[in-house]
Amino acid sequence: MIYPNNLKKEYVKNVSYAKRGMDLEAFINEANKYYDVNNIALIYKKPTPVTITKVTYEQNNVLTKGKLKCKSSLDYVGVYKGKYLDFDAKSTTNKTSFPLGNICDHQINHIKKVLKNSGISFLIIEINHEIYLFKGEDLINFIENNNRKSIPYEYIKSYGSEVKLKYNPTLNYLKALDKLYF
Amino acid sequence: MIYPNNLKKEYVKNVSYAKRGMDLEAFINEANKYYDVNNIALIYKKPTPVTITKVTYEQNNVLTKGKLKCKSSLDYVGVYKGKYLDFDAKSTTNKTSFPLGNICDHQINHIKKVLKNSGISFLIIEINHEIYLFKGEDLINFIENNNRKSIPYEYIKSYGSEVKLKYNPTLNYLKALDKLYF
Repeated sequence: MIYPNNLKKEYVKNVSYAKRGMDLEAFINEANKYYDVNNIALIYKKPTPVTITKVTYEQNNVLTKGKLKCKSSLDYVGVYKGKYLDFDAKSTTNKTSFPLGNICDHQINHIKKVLKNSGISFLIIEINHEIYLFKGEDLINFIENNNRKSIPYEYIKSYGSEVKLKYNPTLNYLKALDKLYF
Repeated sequence: MIYPNNLKKEYVKNVSYAKRGMDLEAFINEANKYYDVNNIALIYKKPTPVTITKVTYEQNNVLTKGKLKCKSSLDYVGVYKGKYLDFDAKSTTNKTSFPLGNICDHQINHIKKVLKNSGISFLIIEINHEIYLFKGEDLINFIENNNRKSIPYEYIKSYGSEVKLKYNPTLNYLKALDKLYF
């Protein structure tokens, strides 16, 4: 379950890791911090796109008024071993499949463009209390060859690479990435 | 002369290309559009970092209130031939040198991190009515071996690669990048 960046989460429902006090996004942020500090990779969350309509100054703070733009790309971007990474985190409470409604057309197009330019684009999918790194190529391939509105769990399991929770960082997703890409 | 993204330019002063109705940033945006449409690269401007403090809904628009964050990275990010690019555009009206005050410490640190992870980071510098692509490595090298508060024009000229204005796209800076990196 992914929230608009920086927006306060009012309440958390049906998030499998929420009971442990962390969600998928928090795991990724923790891993990114670890990768940064240890010079493994530089990966960060893109700022929320806002069209600024007014800027005012108040007590040393620059305040803005703006409109939230429609998100046309993915949440995370970064560099790992010189390669461009661009990905998103998606959670589903469905147990048998991942609904494609979770990804908007703009995002699909963005993934296609990244792949065309030999970048690495993928999803980190939380399904069935498991977390998978799922290649953009496999996503596009599925969409273009199926009329289904969701990707079966078994498909994700066989094409993706599972990321098991460990200690430090909890979600070492670059290990799964190494397996699938390097 | 670089403006905060999306902020209205109230007036343009001393920008060498302003008389032609375009500035450095507009040239880069035009080139990025060209690269995108022609599948040469996917390069985009990062959204202005805003900490959203309040969100309201009004006539189908999501409006926000927020604080502008200090910019800790560079303006542009993208993928070219699979490689991660991260860069900024800087203009100076100085004729003999480029003042380092144009780049904040956060940005220098960001460039160092990108380079450590084998990414490509550089500046597009407008000086003396000329435009240069100037490698992050040369910038860091200069800063670490000089006490000067500005980089001499001649240094930029000899280490950088000049980007001459041409037709379609006007500022084909990836050509200069090819020369310096590939």
